[in-house]
Amino acid sequence: MSLDPVLSRIDADLPQALDRLMALLRIPSISTDPAHAAACREAAEWMVRDLASMGFDAEICPTPKHPMVVAKGGSTGPSLLFYGHYDVQPVDPLSLWHRDPFDPAIEETPKGKVIRARGAGDDKGQLMTFLEACRAWKAVHGSLPARITVFLEGEEESGSPSMVPFLKENADRLKADLALICDTGMLGEATPTIVTMLRGLVGEEITITGPSKDLHSGMYGGPAMNPIRVLARIIAALHDDTGRVTVPGFYDGVPEMPEEILHQWAGTGFDADRFLGEVGLSTPAGEDGRSVLEMLWARPTCEVNGISGGYEGAGFKTVLPSRASAKISFRLVGTQDPLKIRESFRKMVQDMLPPDCTAEFATHGASPASVMDIADPAFEKARRALSQEWPNPAAFVGSGGSIPVAGYFKTLLGMESMLIGFGKDDDAIHSPNEKYDLESFHKGIRSWARILAALAD
Amino acid sequence: MSLDPVLSRIDADLPQALDRLMALLRIPSISTDPAHAAACREAAEWMVRDLASMGFDAEICPTPKHPMVVAKGGSTGPSLLFYGHYDVQPVDPLSLWHRDPFDPAIEETPKGKVIRARGAGDDKGQLMTFLEACRAWKAVHGSLPARITVFLEGEEESGSPSMVPFLKENADRLKADLALICDTGMLGEATPTIVTMLRGLVGEEITITGPSKDLHSGMYGGPAMNPIRVLARIIAALHDDTGRVTVPGFYDGVPEMPEEILHQWAGTGFDADRFLGEVGLSTPAGEDGRSVLEMLWARPTCEVNGISGGYEGAGFKTVLPSRASAKISFRLVGTQDPLKIRESFRKMVQDMLPPDCTAEFATHGASPASVMDIADPAFEKARRALSQEWPNPAAFVGSGGSIPVAGYFKTLLGMESMLIGFGKDDDAIHSPNEKYDLESFHKGIRSWARILAALAD
Repeated sequence: MSLDPVLSRIDADLPQALDRLMALLRIPSISTDPAHAAACREAAEWMVRDLASMGFDAEICPTPKHPMVVAKGGSTGPSLLFYGHYDVQPVDPLSLWHRDPFDPAIEETPKGKVIRARGAGDDKGQLMTFLEACRAWKAVHGSLPARITVFLEGEEESGSPSMVPFLKENADRLKADLALICDTGMLGEATPTIVTMLRGLVGEEITITGPSKDLHSGMYGGPAMNPIRVLARIIAALHDDTGRVTVPGFYDGVPEMPEEILHQWAGTGFDADRFLGEVGLSTPAGEDGRSVLEMLWARPTCEVNGISGGYEGAGFKTVLPSRASAKISFRLVGTQDPLKIRESFRKMVQDMLPPDCTAEFATHGASPASVMDIADPAFEKARRALSQEWPNPAAFVGSGGSIPVAGYFKTLLGMESMLIGFGKDDDAIHSPNEKYDLESFHKGIRSWARILAALAD
Repeated sequence: MSLDPVLSRIDADLPQALDRLMALLRIPSISTDPAHAAACREAAEWMVRDLASMGFDAEICPTPKHPMVVAKGGSTGPSLLFYGHYDVQPVDPLSLWHRDPFDPAIEETPKGKVIRARGAGDDKGQLMTFLEACRAWKAVHGSLPARITVFLEGEEESGSPSMVPFLKENADRLKADLALICDTGMLGEATPTIVTMLRGLVGEEITITGPSKDLHSGMYGGPAMNPIRVLARIIAALHDDTGRVTVPGFYDGVPEMPEEILHQWAGTGFDADRFLGEVGLSTPAGEDGRSVLEMLWARPTCEVNGISGGYEGAGFKTVLPSRASAKISFRLVGTQDPLKIRESFRKMVQDMLPPDCTAEFATHGASPASVMDIADPAFEKARRALSQEWPNPAAFVGSGGSIPVAGYFKTLLGMESMLIGFGKDDDAIHSPNEKYDLESFHKGIRSWARILAALAD
């Protein structure tokens, strides 16, 4: 089946494809906030209607939280599982957005047109590139070039609590020759990538309790232990002076990258100064003696994602609070064991508690890093297809982010995942004023059409 | 003029006195929150009406923020300035209150009846003890036993920004032989106190900025410095392992208490285990080798009153935040210089900043400690008067809290202050479910009637 008319159809249909994306972006499907459960359901239903409209056999699959969407189409060619997520991050601080995050619009910027909205880049805009490629193929040829299962999640931004049980219960209908995941980015403006190494993630929330109630810092300051002080001591102790994480056993399973890989990365044209400069930074803050790409793709980290305690409003309140809490995450590489790291972290916290203080822990997920087997010929086919669409040849790269589902596809369904996406470094995903380049959307759709043709060949 | 009929009148009028206090407690005069400015004004107007109703010449005095109230009454006897504040602390976390903080009620508790509301103990209930004593005296004798100026502030809980300029501009009308301040507590249930040493207070807010915007901790975690980590390191460095504050020069001007004073304190019956036990603690957290009373009354401290940064909502968000902030206060004793300490603290923070990070500072007041001259015979007169009302004799004590106005009265108006109040350790001032014992209110009014008689004698 010929590719060119499919690409022409994609170009002609772009305005309609944008209208569909805008409709999806208007649904505030924030999965971590229970107040938005109905919006998550609405987004799942929207996806089912859209998939059915192009001939997929699509259905909503309930979970204890937000539903999955599973859709099947095509009857010949390789079997592929496409994964994306219809949920989005919270929008706070709302005051930093220059427009309503759920009132999407095409905006002109000095670097070209962008689609501005929460979820534009992560992941609604990205997942629609694949669906629009399928739609164009179906419209031109009357059928899909592969046996495709579309699998969409609604809990990716809230720790994916339903993913593992769902994969186990639905292994037969989801298993395919290869998984395609569209939740990653490009190198700069012109180099498409296939991510072959992904960091894992351990998310922990700790709450330190000292006094049994909030106290007046004049009446009790001195003899009463302040839980913010305890929490600060713990956080300060998580890194040593060279930037290494101090949790005992943390570096077990962290491999040193071979010289040839480091050399290959040095040739990708990645500009560390520009990467940092875009967010107001100049000095790499990770481990001493590592390049920025190593810090991002090949080294584990510990970050504090949030901290809270005492009086946080305007003005001043001389309270000595009863509790203080922090959300802490670890990015993992190689064969680091997320459960051992969680356990070691919790023991380290317990060991640092002074008298009268207690610590409570909540988990927000624990997934290992993923390393793909690029000997599978599909990887090289996809790399060549991408190279035809974009100015620069495509590259095999690592990713600092964590896409735990790729690990689950490997361990639970025995599938390799091919991670291809068209995000840019300045998309501000998880931040105010998130956007997705119109070029990413348009050429992303064209890229998937090419990849489907290549894989079916 | 005889005291006994005044005391009888106080007992008979108690229900009406409680009605008046309830009306005042219903006004949500939270001074630190700009949204409550109208309520602060309403509370000031309520005070003026109440003072005028008992014959005071009362007026509202505007300031750039919340108004002062000044009222004059009486034509003979010693000249006294009574100070109190009509503003209250914020009420968060509201979910921990078992009733609306501004819907006051008398509640039965295992330890007796209490008045439950924000401001019941700090300071509306306390200031009304003095006003009700004046009202009873006027009702019985037709005149006051002293020349009394009532001076009420509306910014005590928000750093008193208008106090110093107001005192300077109104020195002549406010200056008296002695100031009376009702914003302190008792030792246990039965021992009234006159506070003769007060800690000073430096309030600082610091905001650390790292990246220019919030980042995705997967995309940037490693090379990008996290401002929460920087803030935690700074806070952790503020105390050494012996509990001493590490700000350079911090202990300049901190006196060692004479053995005889420490001995006197040991004899007050203060029960450190009970004091800590009431708030779920058992181990004093201050400097090694100091008693709990020393830590509270005679040693300086550093507390973190609030900390904030990154994602603080329910669930998890893998953000690497642009900013993190903390509200930090220092309690001062002896002749510690608040301005030098602020400067040294800021320099210490600046010196600890890693590359790419900046610190902004906001001030929330800086006042020195106060030590009263108890050779003034009024102190002994008041001590004897208090001893007649309560089961135990009254004691001269220190206070861990800071009442900066006492320092200003001394330095700007040349007046000693006598600090007498009837709060209890479990009043939960600045906390959810604040209360004031009905006994504190009733016997507090009777105590002031006795003190006025003694000072007029």
